[in-house]
Amino acid sequence: MDGCRLERRELEAFCTRVFEAMGAVGAEASDAAEILVAADAAGIESHGVARLRRYVNGIKAGIMVPNVEGTVVHSTPLSLVIDGNGAMGLHLSKKTMADVIQRAESHGAAFASVRDSNHFGIAGYYAKMALPKDMIGIAMTNTAALGVPTFAKDAYFGTNPLAVAVPAHREAPFVLDMSTTVVTRGKIETYLREGRLLPEQWAVDKRGIPTQDSEKLLADMLYQLGGGILPLGGSGELTSGYKGYGLAVMVDIFTAVLSGGLFGRDVVDAEGTSGRVAHFFGAVRLDLFRDPEAIKEDMGAMLEALRTAEPAVGESQVYYAGLKEHLHEQACAEQGIPLSGPVWRSLQAIGEELNLPLPQPKV
Amino acid sequence: MDGCRLERRELEAFCTRVFEAMGAVGAEASDAAEILVAADAAGIESHGVARLRRYVNGIKAGIMVPNVEGTVVHSTPLSLVIDGNGAMGLHLSKKTMADVIQRAESHGAAFASVRDSNHFGIAGYYAKMALPKDMIGIAMTNTAALGVPTFAKDAYFGTNPLAVAVPAHREAPFVLDMSTTVVTRGKIETYLREGRLLPEQWAVDKRGIPTQDSEKLLADMLYQLGGGILPLGGSGELTSGYKGYGLAVMVDIFTAVLSGGLFGRDVVDAEGTSGRVAHFFGAVRLDLFRDPEAIKEDMGAMLEALRTAEPAVGESQVYYAGLKEHLHEQACAEQGIPLSGPVWRSLQAIGEELNLPLPQPKV
Repeated sequence: MDGCRLERRELEAFCTRVFEAMGAVGAEASDAAEILVAADAAGIESHGVARLRRYVNGIKAGIMVPNVEGTVVHSTPLSLVIDGNGAMGLHLSKKTMADVIQRAESHGAAFASVRDSNHFGIAGYYAKMALPKDMIGIAMTNTAALGVPTFAKDAYFGTNPLAVAVPAHREAPFVLDMSTTVVTRGKIETYLREGRLLPEQWAVDKRGIPTQDSEKLLADMLYQLGGGILPLGGSGELTSGYKGYGLAVMVDIFTAVLSGGLFGRDVVDAEGTSGRVAHFFGAVRLDLFRDPEAIKEDMGAMLEALRTAEPAVGESQVYYAGLKEHLHEQACAEQGIPLSGPVWRSLQAIGEELNLPLPQPKV
Repeated sequence: MDGCRLERRELEAFCTRVFEAMGAVGAEASDAAEILVAADAAGIESHGVARLRRYVNGIKAGIMVPNVEGTVVHSTPLSLVIDGNGAMGLHLSKKTMADVIQRAESHGAAFASVRDSNHFGIAGYYAKMALPKDMIGIAMTNTAALGVPTFAKDAYFGTNPLAVAVPAHREAPFVLDMSTTVVTRGKIETYLREGRLLPEQWAVDKRGIPTQDSEKLLADMLYQLGGGILPLGGSGELTSGYKGYGLAVMVDIFTAVLSGGLFGRDVVDAEGTSGRVAHFFGAVRLDLFRDPEAIKEDMGAMLEALRTAEPAVGESQVYYAGLKEHLHEQACAEQGIPLSGPVWRSLQAIGEELNLPLPQPKV
């Protein structure tokens, strides 16, 4: 057997031990573990414990600084700006979103823009934090520049994900959590490993011409020679790639321009880990508009209609944003969280290096 | 000569006369004219005076009701919900956005969700209203269902545009104004007129299979037999069409679910005009985060870097969201607003029907 399945709590406990061994303290370690594992539980392996190595590297390199708090540099009843001081993005983001939700409880809506933070995992985690309070949750982050503007040849923005969550009765909540590039770098790497040509409309080479050569693309991106991933909508204007480009820049504005952080080409990854990034969080109370129960009732009707829509010929099911992840999480609660062989081996290696006991795979 | 150029003010005056002749009163008529012509000035002909015929039809059909005000059905310091009572969307939206901006001036941020309104022209117009006040402006609308969810075969959402505007020093403001489908129906109609096959990744037929047959697609859409336009990102998951699908649903939520309006398949166009729709507006003060001057300075630096990015081989210029429209508007200020032959002839016909003097083309 190559991969394995682990109990969610045991995987969280292991990650907590790893973060503690690296210098994180208390909730800083357990939050980081919880949020990473939440990605695996949602089936978003690319942002789960597969990233633990990059976190360990980031702390070693001093890019992610454990046992450091962010500084509130600006505060109003509806807003705050935080200088992350290089703190662990996962814990800092959870704390910040909790603060945003609290301000929204008092005032109706609140927002935070955060600079000089680190990788924060899945944006959807923070957006979903608003749901039990009958609020809409919003989360965004910028990332290292690897996305190429329409008609350009060099990368000027990151995969810049945005997440919006809205609660619903009778259905899983609506949780849109999407990068604004057509794909993330992880997908390009998967195609390289599998020796497959990239689909058209994913990337351009250093001349700005669409490319299907994953190896050359990744090398050129690594050494910042040009080329990169296309925005959602692909190259040029025919399939409206300028829309994804605009969304990516919007995320850069909300996260980094509002907070005074790094944006565009100034956001760069370090060897083996992610660079410093900026985030944005928002919470908006449903009762600013209508009775939350009525809104959630209509949400349920809308999402049910989408879930039960007749599939296209050859397809078996129509989903809505967040449904696949919800179903995956339910399956994991019963069967444990599946880890691929490479990810499981990377955890084993980290455990050995730090002399920490590993979780036992489920049998 | 087929088309012509008109002075902006004269074109606005003509449209005002048309709306007045149809029963609109005072600012209701002049706002509608101003916003329609603003689309032409920005080079967005599809949403400009080419639509005047549809407005005339809509008023005749009683779908758009002139001389009617919206009713505020819910109000907090930060928010309002408006029942449009079928009022003219253009005027109602301008008034609502002005109210949102005023609330944001007092409280930092404000939002409005509007139901039972009508076509509101270009979303960017309302988002831009926030810019002189050093605010971020947001506008969205839902539209008749013609977009097909990922893996589905029937239309469940509209082209559902969203607009976000942010001011900048030294550069044109950032104005993202995008439909969340890959294209709008107007583009499909253009391909039919020109006898061209549709590009792949624009649309699916009534079985949910990608189609390049514009004639059959438009007929099937008209009679709601199935098929429709794909979300931004195209069909299936390979180029992430589920992201555009998620954005379209998000717009339906903010506009219609929050306000208690019609969403999804219940939004339908009538013969020769648009159906009742729902909107969302937002304004967020920059000084919730930092000194607006510092934010606008960074915005200018970001946008300048994008505008001066080295173009791809074969391209001549990189743009940012709003720049092309800004340049078009500058050109129109000097040369007048260009109208195509068919659009000019449609205005002439309306003028004759209503016995109104036409503007004189520039020579």
